[in-house]
Amino acid sequence: MAVLEGAHFVAGRREVAGGERFHAIDPRTGAELAPGFAEASEEQIERACAAAAQADAAFAASAPTERAELLRAIADGIEGLGETLVDRVAAETALPPQRVLAERGRTCTQLRQFADVAEQDAWIEASIDRGDPERQPLPKPDLRRMNVPLGPVVVFGASNFPLAYSVAGGDTASALAVGCPVIVKAHPAHPGTSELVGDVIRVAVERLDLSAGVFSLLHGRSHATGAALVRHPVVKAVGFTGSHLGGRALCDLAATRPEPIPVFAEMGSANPVVVLPNALRGRGVAIAEQLAASSLLAQGQFCTSPGLVLWVDGHGGEAFRRTLRERMLGAEAGPTVHPTIRAGYERTLQEVESLPIEVARGTAKASAATDVCPALLSATPADLFANPRLRHELYGPAMLTVACPSAADLLSIVEALDGHLTGTVHGDGDDFTSHAPLIAALRRKVGRLIANGVPTGVEVCPSMVHGGPYPAASDPRFSAVGSTSVRRWVRPVCWQDCPPDLLPPQLRTEPGTNNNLTG
Amino acid sequence: MAVLEGAHFVAGRREVAGGERFHAIDPRTGAELAPGFAEASEEQIERACAAAAQADAAFAASAPTERAELLRAIADGIEGLGETLVDRVAAETALPPQRVLAERGRTCTQLRQFADVAEQDAWIEASIDRGDPERQPLPKPDLRRMNVPLGPVVVFGASNFPLAYSVAGGDTASALAVGCPVIVKAHPAHPGTSELVGDVIRVAVERLDLSAGVFSLLHGRSHATGAALVRHPVVKAVGFTGSHLGGRALCDLAATRPEPIPVFAEMGSANPVVVLPNALRGRGVAIAEQLAASSLLAQGQFCTSPGLVLWVDGHGGEAFRRTLRERMLGAEAGPTVHPTIRAGYERTLQEVESLPIEVARGTAKASAATDVCPALLSATPADLFANPRLRHELYGPAMLTVACPSAADLLSIVEALDGHLTGTVHGDGDDFTSHAPLIAALRRKVGRLIANGVPTGVEVCPSMVHGGPYPAASDPRFSAVGSTSVRRWVRPVCWQDCPPDLLPPQLRTEPGTNNNLTG
Repeated sequence: MAVLEGAHFVAGRREVAGGERFHAIDPRTGAELAPGFAEASEEQIERACAAAAQADAAFAASAPTERAELLRAIADGIEGLGETLVDRVAAETALPPQRVLAERGRTCTQLRQFADVAEQDAWIEASIDRGDPERQPLPKPDLRRMNVPLGPVVVFGASNFPLAYSVAGGDTASALAVGCPVIVKAHPAHPGTSELVGDVIRVAVERLDLSAGVFSLLHGRSHATGAALVRHPVVKAVGFTGSHLGGRALCDLAATRPEPIPVFAEMGSANPVVVLPNALRGRGVAIAEQLAASSLLAQGQFCTSPGLVLWVDGHGGEAFRRTLRERMLGAEAGPTVHPTIRAGYERTLQEVESLPIEVARGTAKASAATDVCPALLSATPADLFANPRLRHELYGPAMLTVACPSAADLLSIVEALDGHLTGTVHGDGDDFTSHAPLIAALRRKVGRLIANGVPTGVEVCPSMVHGGPYPAASDPRFSAVGSTSVRRWVRPVCWQDCPPDLLPPQLRTEPGTNNNLTG
Repeated sequence: MAVLEGAHFVAGRREVAGGERFHAIDPRTGAELAPGFAEASEEQIERACAAAAQADAAFAASAPTERAELLRAIADGIEGLGETLVDRVAAETALPPQRVLAERGRTCTQLRQFADVAEQDAWIEASIDRGDPERQPLPKPDLRRMNVPLGPVVVFGASNFPLAYSVAGGDTASALAVGCPVIVKAHPAHPGTSELVGDVIRVAVERLDLSAGVFSLLHGRSHATGAALVRHPVVKAVGFTGSHLGGRALCDLAATRPEPIPVFAEMGSANPVVVLPNALRGRGVAIAEQLAASSLLAQGQFCTSPGLVLWVDGHGGEAFRRTLRERMLGAEAGPTVHPTIRAGYERTLQEVESLPIEVARGTAKASAATDVCPALLSATPADLFANPRLRHELYGPAMLTVACPSAADLLSIVEALDGHLTGTVHGDGDDFTSHAPLIAALRRKVGRLIANGVPTGVEVCPSMVHGGPYPAASDPRFSAVGSTSVRRWVRPVCWQDCPPDLLPPQLRTEPGTNNNLTG
């Protein structure tokens, strides 16, 4: 493609409509970036949904190799955009080029991993129970089961990962891998990035001669556009990464449809970190440095950013606290991806400043329009019990520290936590064995338990779990990352006494054999 | 146990409270059966939930063999009740003794199959991705994943299967198999059966020295009791089998909790049956006889009862229709399990009689208090499009027949169907190949596709799917029957860089080995 035009992609058509437009903003200058993007019209939403419904059956029946080819073509296309994409992402988000390149790498890795998932076809989980006509008192029927795609999936891009959790991110890749058409609602913070990546998908769909309804991309700033997509009867599932408010609103909307549909919403998390006594004493300063670096990464714009740090007051505690303070408050200000993120962070800080806890803000000079300064909050266990707000995510470079008077206080805080994406424990010597109940309690609250590390950095591999008990995710039974994330978009079907003609190829067996795939 | 007392079982305690009582009713006589059962009090609900929460961690950590032993002890205990149970079921439901014995057999088979599921421990789906400290640019962490139980599950017993989908039915067995404490809300139509089976579970929990909170059973007729359980913060999931109204109400309640929780509700279905031309011509009469028998089984009190029969008018159609009419309308009246079922059936018939379609009722004499007579409805495709009610379940021995003027009409009806548990096609010769789009459309609407059979009879085996697109089930991604049904109650957790002490035994590996369980 030549230049950005502010285009939606409706089932293969590039559509640049007139009317009111919104712009991406360069976080470093506050300036609007060309071109303008129009809110998707009701008519475009309707056409995108109708085309997805029309493409559904054929895409569900497409060969695994076709879908693998599609995903690889998208990865190649994204890489092929080269500087054009990297520059636009940087302009729209102020993320440093190195981070953009790393995120692009991760995005393409994900796409290629899901190409393998598609090609290997293991996600169908084929199972065959042979019949037995001689069984008494009733013959046993022949039963064969495999997973099939749910149907059109609506994906909401996230602001903080303009590539990896956006137009061609994990939700889209996993849905396409199993044969679900995808309609992306682009995040309004990076519409240009979305147009570039969306065009890559459009072109790949066209080149592979797939039904155009397999992919649409719609822009919009208003809640109405996303809501109309979630409410549309042909839509069968929703993927979302973002704020608790946004995610819960979509869940509520989906649950009140005439036909409720599943929403997988990953809604962020405070990612509690517990530092146990030996670790605090032996390497408290190093842990504090590591934690501050993790929290400050991209100004805390990570759903896995460590936002709540707990320990039992004691040897090493003062040095730990002092180091955290120095590193957090001494850090430079830095830009967030959009003015709305900065505004949200400021609101959060004002909110916590109205509570009777200590809130220290960094004093670095904010030079850019969306710059935020780190903040370090200190509270007592009683404060946490009195103010549930303190147990939840503080999105941005803010960290709440709680030095507990006793191990019992620490345990009671962990037991009172809601769900989080991750929980981290630092321990040395007998720390882990002597705090087993604490660690067990933490494990019950999270999707991923980390020992002696930091929660940021989500490895893309089969064993990863990116999700967790509510409110980290809307349904703890699924992960947004890893090969099992396709389970969000598939359902089992059973074929009973069906002749080969009626069976999908994967469930046909040679006559006379008795292979039971379930083992 | 000696005699029925009208007891709740709250975390191991047999509790017979005073106050107002309700009674089971003998459907054959309309007489109340002793003893009376009281509505569970708020205090009992609270104690059952608190005990479940307290039992949760220990039960989650119990050995697979312990849970297997529990499930087998329950099966043995149910069989050990002998005539006492069979007689009480028959008295409360009017189901014939042979059916009660068959259902008891199925219930115990399910319990023992889930004992195997527990013991085999495959449901944890262990996955290990070894770390690589040398990886560039960043070391790869060691990641290990397995499933863990969600926590306390509330199970609602169904009226039509007093054993197999009730107190110790599939929902309870699958939840216990993976280590979720269970609180059963007994169905008020068979409280005595529930007390007998509940006591078996209570005794088994006690004998195996498990925490008493692992199981509670509460009686109640009011919606308030079930609602209080679903709303309780410690409850993490719900299993329900019953009416659309009841299931949807629970889903709505669960979705509006501060912490929404998953509800698996199986809400019945019209189970469409399509008879293709060659089959109609060659064996229409035999199919009609088979279908009528399936529909009349237990007065149609099956969620898989065939309630909607479709064919293209043509050779054999008249004989098919005549046979259906003779068999359905000539059948004897028979008892339903409860006066409320009869009342619901009568309401349904009055509802459809107000529509401009043909409704023929059998004229057999209803001798017992809850007796119902079969009914045969005939409608045109246009009637089905005009009245969505006709496309949904008619609970009871009623069947709606639609002779379509053309194959195109038949296809358009199938495409307009909502979700159903099952879809059945009868075909001979080239029927299946020449109606491939029709069969593909039907497959998209159902959880199980049956060729040349009847939908009643749900084989309990790994390949079975009992569920389907809404409104057959609240979430099409799960099945209520088969070993995969445990997925309703588990969530994945990932351990990152955890030393063996912090890992569950199933995820520990010998140092130096590099076995990746994901293969």
